[in-house]
Amino acid sequence: MSELLQEVRVFAPASVANVSCGFDVLGFALEQPGDEIVARRKDEPGLHISKITGEGGVLPTAVEKNTAGVAAQKLLEHLGSQQGIELEIHKKMPLGSGLGSSAASSVGAIVAINRLLGSPCADHDLLPFAAEGERVACGTAHLDNVAPSLFGGFVLIRSQDPPDVIELECLKPLFATVVHPDIEIKTEDTRNILRRDVALHKAVDQWGNVGGLVVGLLKGDYELIGRSLKDVIIEPIRSVLIPGFEQVKNAALNAGALGSGISGSGPSIFALSATRENGHKIAKAMQQRFDEIGLGNEAYVCKINQQGPQILEER
Amino acid sequence: MSELLQEVRVFAPASVANVSCGFDVLGFALEQPGDEIVARRKDEPGLHISKITGEGGVLPTAVEKNTAGVAAQKLLEHLGSQQGIELEIHKKMPLGSGLGSSAASSVGAIVAINRLLGSPCADHDLLPFAAEGERVACGTAHLDNVAPSLFGGFVLIRSQDPPDVIELECLKPLFATVVHPDIEIKTEDTRNILRRDVALHKAVDQWGNVGGLVVGLLKGDYELIGRSLKDVIIEPIRSVLIPGFEQVKNAALNAGALGSGISGSGPSIFALSATRENGHKIAKAMQQRFDEIGLGNEAYVCKINQQGPQILEER
Repeated sequence: MSELLQEVRVFAPASVANVSCGFDVLGFALEQPGDEIVARRKDEPGLHISKITGEGGVLPTAVEKNTAGVAAQKLLEHLGSQQGIELEIHKKMPLGSGLGSSAASSVGAIVAINRLLGSPCADHDLLPFAAEGERVACGTAHLDNVAPSLFGGFVLIRSQDPPDVIELECLKPLFATVVHPDIEIKTEDTRNILRRDVALHKAVDQWGNVGGLVVGLLKGDYELIGRSLKDVIIEPIRSVLIPGFEQVKNAALNAGALGSGISGSGPSIFALSATRENGHKIAKAMQQRFDEIGLGNEAYVCKINQQGPQILEER
Repeated sequence: MSELLQEVRVFAPASVANVSCGFDVLGFALEQPGDEIVARRKDEPGLHISKITGEGGVLPTAVEKNTAGVAAQKLLEHLGSQQGIELEIHKKMPLGSGLGSSAASSVGAIVAINRLLGSPCADHDLLPFAAEGERVACGTAHLDNVAPSLFGGFVLIRSQDPPDVIELECLKPLFATVVHPDIEIKTEDTRNILRRDVALHKAVDQWGNVGGLVVGLLKGDYELIGRSLKDVIIEPIRSVLIPGFEQVKNAALNAGALGSGISGSGPSIFALSATRENGHKIAKAMQQRFDEIGLGNEAYVCKINQQGPQILEER
């Protein structure tokens, strides 16, 4: 039995989904924050969540109610594995922040288990199981958080069903600033306030910008990226749920951001920039605006995460 | 005066706009057909259209009612030129065919006049004048025919106003088959049957496909191009105006087309393929379906036109 891994600890990154014009189709991974998941072999059969830390006790440890649990269970069923496994979930980011917290836990769990079991699946083939976790968290299996968390980098979800995920290698360095104000918005609520229909001319603007953003990334054209980071459909509706949104976004742009928008379904606000130095300057400007309206907040500045999850420890 | 050009003859290519998912934002130029425009210095002042051929006498020769005339007039006003000029417009493609006929004439006219006057404008700076011609033809200054006709290749209109046109170099050869059935549909009518609103989930599908198509082109990924050539919003509505549309499109796909859809606002139907040989095979299959329902038709097979307009003669 000495060749079998007994325990694997994985870091799975947070991610920014709904990138401006790319509602439901564009997302990218962050270097920080991210969750840590431990998967450990146990003699007793079945999958168990033995410990969850960092979330104030609000997440369910029942496997079938926990997004990471569901994702892990789906993977084990697919593999036909009878191995007893316990999971520890160490949340390292706020819940309901718009940073793909549930996706990170799902991705971490399946990557850890896959590794523990000797990597029977290629990393890319793990996507459907992570998507099942999202179905529990959001009601639908949206991929724009799980795909960047699993693959790293900037991704385009060309199609949710069947899944068609396209990795977009940005030709130039790209840095993300994300500021999370200390309020919680439920993804479900942010879905419910969206209109079922959109004006055709706005949809045209949006898909022109999606095209522009994709070209900008692939060619490393910062100006084009900046011009394309616009959302004329979702942001005008959802931003009303985020106190100070316009001021914070404008602060980011005035500090030199290529563009800025709602991260996921909020309340976090992201901005993109060409240098780490600029990313920090932007963070400062954004935080100052939140401070001015008395809203506690936390900022992250990092390069876009190109590698996805990382194995931190295994034994 | 011997150094001054007296006459310039220009070929300006037809184009396919509204490329599947890319309604109002994606278009490409064809090598054939295209219009030929002659611009000639005259002693009498002002701009005149002296001759129009190939369109059965339906196009107005009054400058202010003719799309090419309006475009040319706008250019001359911009240049502050008092030079007397006469234009000949030789239509080499059917009107109202969905092949950007009016755009080709506008582009040909301004390229010919610009050349005649010693090229005071760079080709790319001519776009706004061609757009004005489209405003006469369609009521709005859509760019997805004039931009490919003027620049050649595949273009993305990220924004109509202000114009932001992005040239998409396809990494692999791409061939177009266009079949024009012998019916006329007015662009205005095809605009009127569109709904003002679209379902958000369909808009998401559409912008996912726009992103996919752009990546496919830039990376030369034929399969991705094929998967992305889908239109879930416009085609289902407009295709009812084109007898036999479904059969013809399916014939193209069955004959190996990467994708197929309505060219512009129809009635022409385009298909894309990886080889000229396949383009011809596709044309044959598409024409056969139109023949079966007794609809006269004409087919064009060519490489995507990378160079835009051509000076055919000058003296």
